[in-house]
Amino acid sequence: MSETSAAWAAVEAQYLRDRAARSLGIELLSVSSGTVQIAMRVRPDMLNGHGTCHGGIVFTLADTAFGYACNSRGTAMVAAGASIEFLAASSPGERLIATATETSRGERHGIYDVTIRDEAGEVRAHFRGRCARFRPAAPPSTHQGST
Amino acid sequence: MSETSAAWAAVEAQYLRDRAARSLGIELLSVSSGTVQIAMRVRPDMLNGHGTCHGGIVFTLADTAFGYACNSRGTAMVAAGASIEFLAASSPGERLIATATETSRGERHGIYDVTIRDEAGEVRAHFRGRCARFRPAAPPSTHQGST
Amino acid sequence: MSETSAAWAAVEAQYLRDRAARSLGIELLSVSSGTVQIAMRVRPDMLNGHGTCHGGIVFTLADTAFGYACNSRGTAMVAAGASIEFLAASSPGERLIATATETSRGERHGIYDVTIRDEAGEVRAHFRGRCARFRPAAPPSTHQGST
Amino acid sequence: MSETSAAWAAVEAQYLRDRAARSLGIELLSVSSGTVQIAMRVRPDMLNGHGTCHGGIVFTLADTAFGYACNSRGTAMVAAGASIEFLAASSPGERLIATATETSRGERHGIYDVTIRDEAGEVRAHFRGRCARFRPAAPPSTHQGST
Repeated sequence: MSETSAAWAAVEAQYLRDRAARSLGIELLSVSSGTVQIAMRVRPDMLNGHGTCHGGIVFTLADTAFGYACNSRGTAMVAAGASIEFLAASSPGERLIATATETSRGERHGIYDVTIRDEAGEVRAHFRGRCARFRPAAPPSTHQGST
Repeated sequence: MSETSAAWAAVEAQYLRDRAARSLGIELLSVSSGTVQIAMRVRPDMLNGHGTCHGGIVFTLADTAFGYACNSRGTAMVAAGASIEFLAASSPGERLIATATETSRGERHGIYDVTIRDEAGEVRAHFRGRCARFRPAAPPSTHQGST
Repeated sequence: MSETSAAWAAVEAQYLRDRAARSLGIELLSVSSGTVQIAMRVRPDMLNGHGTCHGGIVFTLADTAFGYACNSRGTAMVAAGASIEFLAASSPGERLIATATETSRGERHGIYDVTIRDEAGEVRAHFRGRCARFRPAAPPSTHQGST
Repeated sequence: MSETSAAWAAVEAQYLRDRAARSLGIELLSVSSGTVQIAMRVRPDMLNGHGTCHGGIVFTLADTAFGYACNSRGTAMVAAGASIEFLAASSPGERLIATATETSRGERHGIYDVTIRDEAGEVRAHFRGRCARFRPAAPPSTHQGST
C-alpha cells in the first residue's frame, strides 16, 4: 500500500467512527500524509444569534481536518490545543472547505495549520492546532485546576 | 431594570435566536454583566472517532458562553478569535458547565476567559476569546488571504 | 521550610542564573507556590520603531514571570508555548509589573496567566503560557519542520 | 521605485528607529512586500536559568520579523497579539533566522506567520502574529481590565 493509500485508509477509518463530523454533514475530499481536505455545508441549525454560521461550528470543521491530518501517518495523536482567527462570517447554504497542512511533526508533537475558505476561495478563518502522542488516560486527580 | 436583569434580557434574546446552541441542547444557567454560565450534556452524536466528546463541540460550548458574555453589556460584539487548551476528554452522558468571565473590556475590544468543568468541578478545558465591536460587513475583496 | 519559603528559594535560584532577566533589569517582588510578581522599568534600549516598549520585551517580562511561577513548586518545567494580547503601549521610564497566577497544574503540564500592568494598575497586556515537565533533550532529528 | 524597493525602504527606516532590535544585534537579511527575513546570534546575556536562549528573546526575534513584515506595505500597523510554540531550545553562539510570511492581509487586519530556524534549517519555534491598522491612542480610561 502506498503512503497516500495508507493515509486515506487511516483517515477514512477515523471518519467512519466520527459521529460528530458525520452529523454535521462533513465530507472527506482528499487525504495524503499530513494533508487533509474536507467540506461542510452551512445548515440552518448551525446558525448563531447573528444569523451566520456559529464560530464553534467553523472551529469544529477546522478541528476535524486537523484531527484527521495528525492521524494520517498512522500514529495516534490527540489534540492538545488550538487557536482560530475569524476573518469573515459564513451564511446559510454556503459550502466551506477546510485544508489542513503539516507545519511541524515530531515523535511526540505536531503543529497543523488549517485554512477555511468558501467555494470561491475567499478565506473565512485561520486555525492552528497542536497535537500530542496519545497516552492512556491519567487518573482524574492529575489536574488541579485552580481557577 | 437592574444591570443584572438587563444582562439576562440581552443574553436570553441572543440565546433564543441561537439555533446552533439550542440544537446542541445548551441551557442558560446564570448571567450577569460580563459573566455567563451555561451547560450542555454530551450526546452520542457529539462523539469523535475516539468515543469522547469532539473537541470542536467542547469549543462550541466555550465559544457560546464567550459570545453571550461579551454581549451581556448590551453593545454588539463579534468574536475575532480564540484559543483553547484541552486538559481531559469528556464521555457521553456527562454534563459540562462553561463559565465565562471578563478579563478585559474596552470600547472596541474585550477578552473573556472560559473554563469548562464537569459536574464534579474537574477542569476539562480552558478557553480565551477576543471580541471586537460589531461593524457592518466589509466588501468581500477586503481580505486577501495569500495562503 | 514553609511552602512559600521553598517557592521563594526555588525562584530566587532560577533568577540568579537568568542572565537575560537580569540584563533587562527585572526584579523579583513576591513569590508563593504558583504565583510570582516581578517588575521592569522600560529603558531607551527597549524601544521599537514607534518609540514605545518593544512587544517582544513586554512578552519577555511576562514569559519570565510565567517561567518562575511554573518552577515555583520545585519540579522543573519548560515553556511549551504562549500567547499574548497587547492592550496598550508602554513609554520609556514606565515601570511595568507582571503578575503570574496558576490556572491549571498537573503532573506533566501547567497553564499560567500573566497580567502586565503599569504602576497605576492599568492593564497593558494579557499573557497565557503552557509548560511541560522537563525531559532530557531529544536528538535534533526529532522535529521535522516542513514549513 | 519597485514594490520590493519600497518595501525594503519602509522596513529599513523602521529598523533604524528600532533600538530594541539593534541592541539585540538583529540584522536585516531580505525584504519584499509581506515577507521579511532577519537574523540574531544568541549572546550570553540572552540566556535563561537553563543556559539556553530565553524564550522571550526568541519571541522578540519573531515579533520583530512580524512587525517589519506587516509594515512592509507602507501602511502603519501595530501588533495586536501573537502566539508562539517552542520546539527546541537554542544555545549560546547559535545564529537564529526568522522568516515572516503573510498569511492574511486586509485593510484593517493582518496575520503573519514566522518560523525561527537555526543555520542548518532546523525549526526552533513557530509564531503567529495579528496586527491592526494603527490608530491614534485612546484615552487611558478606555480599557477597564477587571483582572
